[in-house]
Amino acid sequence: MLQYELIKKNTDCSARLGQLKLAHGVIDTPIFMPVGTQATVKTLNSEDLYEIGAGIILSNTYHLYLRPGEELIEKAGGLHGFMNWKRGILTDSGGFQVFSLSKLRQINDEGVYFNSHIDGSKHFLTPEKVMEIEQKLGADIAMCFDELVPYPCSYEEAEKAVQRTTLWAQRCKDTHNRTDQALFGIIQGNVFPDLREKSARDLKALDFHGYGIGGLSVGEPKTDMYAMLDLMDKILPWEKPRYLMGVGAPEDLLEGVRRGVDMFDCVLPTRLARHGSAYTHEGRITVRNASYAEDFRPLDSACNCWVCRNHSRAYIRHLIKAGEILAHRLLTYHNVYFLVKMMERIRTAIKEDRFMEFYHEFLGEYQV
Amino acid sequence: MLQYELIKKNTDCSARLGQLKLAHGVIDTPIFMPVGTQATVKTLNSEDLYEIGAGIILSNTYHLYLRPGEELIEKAGGLHGFMNWKRGILTDSGGFQVFSLSKLRQINDEGVYFNSHIDGSKHFLTPEKVMEIEQKLGADIAMCFDELVPYPCSYEEAEKAVQRTTLWAQRCKDTHNRTDQALFGIIQGNVFPDLREKSARDLKALDFHGYGIGGLSVGEPKTDMYAMLDLMDKILPWEKPRYLMGVGAPEDLLEGVRRGVDMFDCVLPTRLARHGSAYTHEGRITVRNASYAEDFRPLDSACNCWVCRNHSRAYIRHLIKAGEILAHRLLTYHNVYFLVKMMERIRTAIKEDRFMEFYHEFLGEYQV
Repeated sequence: MLQYELIKKNTDCSARLGQLKLAHGVIDTPIFMPVGTQATVKTLNSEDLYEIGAGIILSNTYHLYLRPGEELIEKAGGLHGFMNWKRGILTDSGGFQVFSLSKLRQINDEGVYFNSHIDGSKHFLTPEKVMEIEQKLGADIAMCFDELVPYPCSYEEAEKAVQRTTLWAQRCKDTHNRTDQALFGIIQGNVFPDLREKSARDLKALDFHGYGIGGLSVGEPKTDMYAMLDLMDKILPWEKPRYLMGVGAPEDLLEGVRRGVDMFDCVLPTRLARHGSAYTHEGRITVRNASYAEDFRPLDSACNCWVCRNHSRAYIRHLIKAGEILAHRLLTYHNVYFLVKMMERIRTAIKEDRFMEFYHEFLGEYQV
Repeated sequence: MLQYELIKKNTDCSARLGQLKLAHGVIDTPIFMPVGTQATVKTLNSEDLYEIGAGIILSNTYHLYLRPGEELIEKAGGLHGFMNWKRGILTDSGGFQVFSLSKLRQINDEGVYFNSHIDGSKHFLTPEKVMEIEQKLGADIAMCFDELVPYPCSYEEAEKAVQRTTLWAQRCKDTHNRTDQALFGIIQGNVFPDLREKSARDLKALDFHGYGIGGLSVGEPKTDMYAMLDLMDKILPWEKPRYLMGVGAPEDLLEGVRRGVDMFDCVLPTRLARHGSAYTHEGRITVRNASYAEDFRPLDSACNCWVCRNHSRAYIRHLIKAGEILAHRLLTYHNVYFLVKMMERIRTAIKEDRFMEFYHEFLGEYQV
């Protein structure tokens, strides 16, 4: 099940306030989905995520298929039961990981042969198989299996991938039958406007519950990404949710929302944490740097998260230098909180029909 | 400040119920102190430890002196301010680490020359310097600087270390002047009864706030450790707390309490967690083993901790296999909870004058 309700659109841009009804709860959009690749948002537990206010998280089909396997997760009551998470989950289709992580052996219209990045074992994924896996994982939203092309790539390559992505989307739709799970199509087309348009129209014709915009933020200039989003905003049906896949830097969240995007996910907050960096309202800081050794202020003076209320930059830097896992945990908590709260503020601004004002206010302080 | 009140002693053994008033709270004894070597109990934050019910934690002077340095911690308001922990803290003296972790260069009656295990830098620690460091760290309880000998060692070596430990204890006492911090002497003597007795009497004469029993559980037979504890029970003043240093396996907690020990610390619960093991009321299990792959029961069916109420062995095993830090965190939380709750049950049993009954009940189920 999935119902999307468009509540309000701003007058001077395409920012949209909406509500998504999922099998596990109702979420307000636009929203940021923290990434829990292997059935955990790295270092955090469900309590942390409830406290932060995350309404939906993303988990990776490719990883879970390889380890621990969808059969085990199904036995545990699906991903919700396995990881004990009571709110929304979206699973990607594994398309992106097959092309970026694994040793790709062969791709044809039938599917993809690849070797596991874990143990080198051989696997063959088809749209039908991916649907079987995602239905066993049992997320609230499943994504169609798609073909991703790198940036840069030739027009011909991108065109072929769009055709195949449409073909596979049709087969996903034909296979998918879990009524408590929504299915989203994924639009490809690299940075070629006519291919993006074709892909969007193809998938629109298949009438999915929502649409993922894939294959962006893979190295192309930001202006290209924004142009593609402008185009999508014109073509995609207003009554369906739009999800910009793998994008989540604060400035990109703003650019996406401005162009009508409702959903985002990104590993950046957790990855930055691993590297000792934190978001602040003035931009990113690298807390591991020596300049923070005696800085007894919180990570972000404007933040009200548990970490900022309780710990100093100096303490967190010490934990990083000492190789303590708690550093990773505290930074992850803060970074995820930062983005979740940013989306809350974005929703409030849209509600007040002042998103572009918020956009300028935020970027006036935040150094990209 | 430190006040110890002996509340009750059992009739058929030396188990004691007591209360320790510290600068940061009142704790009931016997108690287990989780170890926060580098100003963090690995993977856990203060909230977790409050929730678990830990009343006092141990932190390591040697590590904190080397990194981030006692000056920085003093600026942050001492260890309590630095790590934001509002309950009790005990700092060891660094004696054990100087002898076990660092490259020891030279020891004489004045102090110890050693090279840092982190960067090889040269350091010289004396009783006076250790007191200066511990007073800057500002724990509720500081330990005297002592000399540790390995097991096995010659009588002469052990005798020399006892003499030096007494000499150093006197110098620690002469130097220490922080009135909100208690100072404990450390009894050495290896497994030689007459040396242990001499050490205990020497330190007793110096009238410390409490007494650490050091240099045990370093490889000697358990029967030797128990014999030394029996001896200490006879010699140490009943009106002062007794702390068995570095000992914390469940069976040893029972053996210690039975012989009149009030305080314990041990890295075992956190170390076992790192290795994928958990305490249960039936003994330790290694959750990383394949046999737990589809085991959807909690770590310990008799445990009421957050982890056992929310997660399965199968999920935690998956996290271990996937290299997820959350595994380490969940196992640490559970293992520390297990020991803290075990001590609560021990205190209840002593209160009811049935400690030895509890001892047999516990060991009837728990496979060592």
